[in-house]
Amino acid sequence: MTIHDVAVLAGVSTGTVSKALSGRGQLREETRERVQAAAQQLGFRPNDLARSLLRGRTFTVGLLTSDSFGRFSIPLMQGIEDALGAGSVAVYLCDARGDRVRERHYIESLLSRRVDGIIVSGRRADPRPPLGVHPSVPVVYAYSQSTSPEDLAVVPDDVHGGRLAVDHLARAGRRRLAHVTGPARFEAVRLRLEGARQAAAEAGLDLPDERMLTGAWSEAWGREAAALLLAERRGADAIFCGNDQIARGVADALRERGARVPDDVAIVGYDNWELVAAATRPPLTSVDQGLERVGRTAAHLLLARIEGAGESGVRRLPCSLVVRESSGFTSLREHPPEPAP
Amino acid sequence: MTIHDVAVLAGVSTGTVSKALSGRGQLREETRERVQAAAQQLGFRPNDLARSLLRGRTFTVGLLTSDSFGRFSIPLMQGIEDALGAGSVAVYLCDARGDRVRERHYIESLLSRRVDGIIVSGRRADPRPPLGVHPSVPVVYAYSQSTSPEDLAVVPDDVHGGRLAVDHLARAGRRRLAHVTGPARFEAVRLRLEGARQAAAEAGLDLPDERMLTGAWSEAWGREAAALLLAERRGADAIFCGNDQIARGVADALRERGARVPDDVAIVGYDNWELVAAATRPPLTSVDQGLERVGRTAAHLLLARIEGAGESGVRRLPCSLVVRESSGFTSLREHPPEPAP
Repeated sequence: MTIHDVAVLAGVSTGTVSKALSGRGQLREETRERVQAAAQQLGFRPNDLARSLLRGRTFTVGLLTSDSFGRFSIPLMQGIEDALGAGSVAVYLCDARGDRVRERHYIESLLSRRVDGIIVSGRRADPRPPLGVHPSVPVVYAYSQSTSPEDLAVVPDDVHGGRLAVDHLARAGRRRLAHVTGPARFEAVRLRLEGARQAAAEAGLDLPDERMLTGAWSEAWGREAAALLLAERRGADAIFCGNDQIARGVADALRERGARVPDDVAIVGYDNWELVAAATRPPLTSVDQGLERVGRTAAHLLLARIEGAGESGVRRLPCSLVVRESSGFTSLREHPPEPAP
Repeated sequence: MTIHDVAVLAGVSTGTVSKALSGRGQLREETRERVQAAAQQLGFRPNDLARSLLRGRTFTVGLLTSDSFGRFSIPLMQGIEDALGAGSVAVYLCDARGDRVRERHYIESLLSRRVDGIIVSGRRADPRPPLGVHPSVPVVYAYSQSTSPEDLAVVPDDVHGGRLAVDHLARAGRRRLAHVTGPARFEAVRLRLEGARQAAAEAGLDLPDERMLTGAWSEAWGREAAALLLAERRGADAIFCGNDQIARGVADALRERGARVPDDVAIVGYDNWELVAAATRPPLTSVDQGLERVGRTAAHLLLARIEGAGESGVRRLPCSLVVRESSGFTSLREHPPEPAP
């Protein structure tokens, strides 16, 4: 099906078809309608590529990720897609796999394809070197941020996430808090701890150094840390964990050592990774980072940048808490404890 | 930076620049080189979009997935990217989320962007209705297949996967096989069982109906099935599981009921999903479906279709086995048992 077929059916020249479908040039309304009807009847698709050249925009954006693993990038992508109108702006996927040479190659490829802008996402939200593209190319970092203050980033609010977890444990009547989390070099670890300390101080809860344990982001570390807390009788009745895998390890080790969850010890995880949180015995109460919303917001801000808006800096979006059995709150809801002094 | 700047620097007209960079028209070699040098000096990017219009190809393909979840689509995407030369053909990501209206919308969007072809991937390999695009649009199904025999699909060989698992257990000296797997309506469940039965028959192993249990694809089902096998003394010394989550549930339930893995019962999982397989106690031996290779092969076949090659049907790629501790084979390697009669 070509422009020629449309011209024959509409009884006009191909130039007139071009005018009618591209919206350029002067035409009688009746002619334009006849051409459009003919195009529709024949199922002729106006060529988006050709049109985008005229408009100076391609209605494509690049999504450059280093999270091959997918756990964090999938909800991000869903949010980005939602914001970009499910197809009216197309997303090129580029997985740099944490490799700077691959990243450079992809950036060149995206620029030569004239994307309208680039979203950069990562496996963790720690600051990374800026992309190094010309300032005229709109860029937004999502679940990632750059070391340049002129860049624009959207990340979950880790301080808020830490506050939510501990505030919830305090309202569930717990007093002796422990925190088992990932490596201290992660910004997320430091910020979540900061939030946890704030909420603990406000609720009059205790979070001494001996109940604050950093290690790997793994179940094995969760089991090890729980064993340590029990064996040395550090007396925690609530454990806030830095991710759901750690929380699962903690729950398994406690159960296997005869401590009841949540009766003896309440647990809150982080990430609300359904596959882990729901499969844990008992299912995990967990902080949800709202990554879909992070993706959606980043895409909206990218569109604004493409239109020339100049916001920069780091935007931190609030988290939410998904309550399951591990925090012992569901039953308490019916008989709420006295508020903490 | 525009074509005009290049023309000024090279001392030629913009028409000559266009000829030199597009490769169209007659030009003296010396002139072409001067223009190219000027373009390079100024960092002028030839417009891929404009060039693709001339060549009739856009060097883009659409990846239409319904696996929002990402576990299966991520390795597929990596394979597809590798095959497409990491950026020389760009991939538009479209996540239809199992919704036919979204899928239709994305197909329209891909066609109007004139993609050279479409790869369709899914959350499971069962046959689905064909895309319903014009036969002139090249389509390949990856980890998915259509009900039309004219379509081309690449899927893992489930019969081979089932054979690998049971053959391994037989070589580890096991005699009394059980199979705990997902819902029987899945083609994968039927094919893996077929492979398991073939290998069992060849090795003289027993797989009676009472040790063949279908249920959900979950840890909870794995725990339930293991409890059943133990309580009713059905006497399995090896359990081949339909996925790693089931295998993990089986391993947990056996341990908690005092059965030693692998000493008393060997376990083989399926999917080789690192996060589950490596975190299980003991770590799971598991069948790897080779999804990266499925993605790579699908992309190569799509490129061949774009060039006009006509292969159709279902291509089944072999699986591999990743040996960890749960199957009790590592130690046996040093003291291999007598081959099964």
